[in-house]
Amino acid sequence: MTAAPIDFYFDYSSPAGYVASTRIDAIAATYGRDVNWRPVLLGPIFKVTGAAPLLGVPLKGKYAKHDFMRTARLNGVEMRFPSSFPFSSVAAARAHYWLSDRDRRAAVRFTQAVLHAVWVDDRDISAISTVLAIAGQLGHDEAELEAALSSQAVKDRLKSEVDAAMERGVFGSPYVIVDDEPFWGADRLGQIEKWLQTGGW
Amino acid sequence: MTAAPIDFYFDYSSPAGYVASTRIDAIAATYGRDVNWRPVLLGPIFKVTGAAPLLGVPLKGKYAKHDFMRTARLNGVEMRFPSSFPFSSVAAARAHYWLSDRDRRAAVRFTQAVLHAVWVDDRDISAISTVLAIAGQLGHDEAELEAALSSQAVKDRLKSEVDAAMERGVFGSPYVIVDDEPFWGADRLGQIEKWLQTGGW
Repeated sequence: MTAAPIDFYFDYSSPAGYVASTRIDAIAATYGRDVNWRPVLLGPIFKVTGAAPLLGVPLKGKYAKHDFMRTARLNGVEMRFPSSFPFSSVAAARAHYWLSDRDRRAAVRFTQAVLHAVWVDDRDISAISTVLAIAGQLGHDEAELEAALSSQAVKDRLKSEVDAAMERGVFGSPYVIVDDEPFWGADRLGQIEKWLQTGGW
Repeated sequence: MTAAPIDFYFDYSSPAGYVASTRIDAIAATYGRDVNWRPVLLGPIFKVTGAAPLLGVPLKGKYAKHDFMRTARLNGVEMRFPSSFPFSSVAAARAHYWLSDRDRRAAVRFTQAVLHAVWVDDRDISAISTVLAIAGQLGHDEAELEAALSSQAVKDRLKSEVDAAMERGVFGSPYVIVDDEPFWGADRLGQIEKWLQTGGW
């Protein structure tokens, strides 16, 4: 039997979201869970919460970048800070949902490749051409995806995902929901594991 | 031989600062280090960084309170959320430095008692009378302390500590500096321990 999947919300442009993405599937699988990968956009979310992008905050932003890299090193996560930051993740997120509606697992593989392209290979995924190239390498039809990315239906699909995420309380990245219990931040992966194991405390 | 002490910056009104305060001395002592307890005020610091008090942020604030209590439970830290929050910690912080200039260890004991009063016994430390009572119970002269709290010298003492903290990059609570390496948040106690043990990675 399989228990309900856990929801994994993240923005491709979030360093902590990337870190969590490298471990979330393995953590969930240990406890027989599947993961719903749900890319969102922090831009419209921060407009509602009034939050400022972390790395732009005086004092805190400089520390945060240092902390992300130090934590990645400690945990053996391969990570390079993108030379262009912040960047738009709209094209990647739209592509994810378009693929996901056809083949959920293929969408996850695509998204993992996009995250690796940004956070290891320093590729510019704000460019649609990069997103198309990554999809093409995985065997998807680039022309079909390109047409989809400019369609209103695909734009609306992402927007409704972001709206639904905010209704569930998602205010940052990563944000994981396990059986209605929310966990924010890559720092909570240990607690997520414990929650999956014990059912809460 | 003794290595340099580590600096522990916190605001009495910070839940994460309280959590860190319950463990920082033991962590430091394991590696032969002393701790400089340095209360600061997040109010003037947030004015500079433009940060909003965490618990007032839409969505995030509600989550953060839940997360603090959940994390405290997991780690066996006794903690009750104060019925009046946020609150001013000016009197307590001024009292700390006044005491510290006379007897550094007595100041730490006073500050630990104040933190326990807020975060376990739900006492209102924004009231000078509470601060005086706690100091009195520890054998300090309440009348002398009361006079000190309204003196310009003691006000200036705290202000210069807060200014100096900001110059070192302190933007939140807790903020710990180990041999020039900064760590923000109770979530970093594990990394602090690792840094003390290894000298960095």
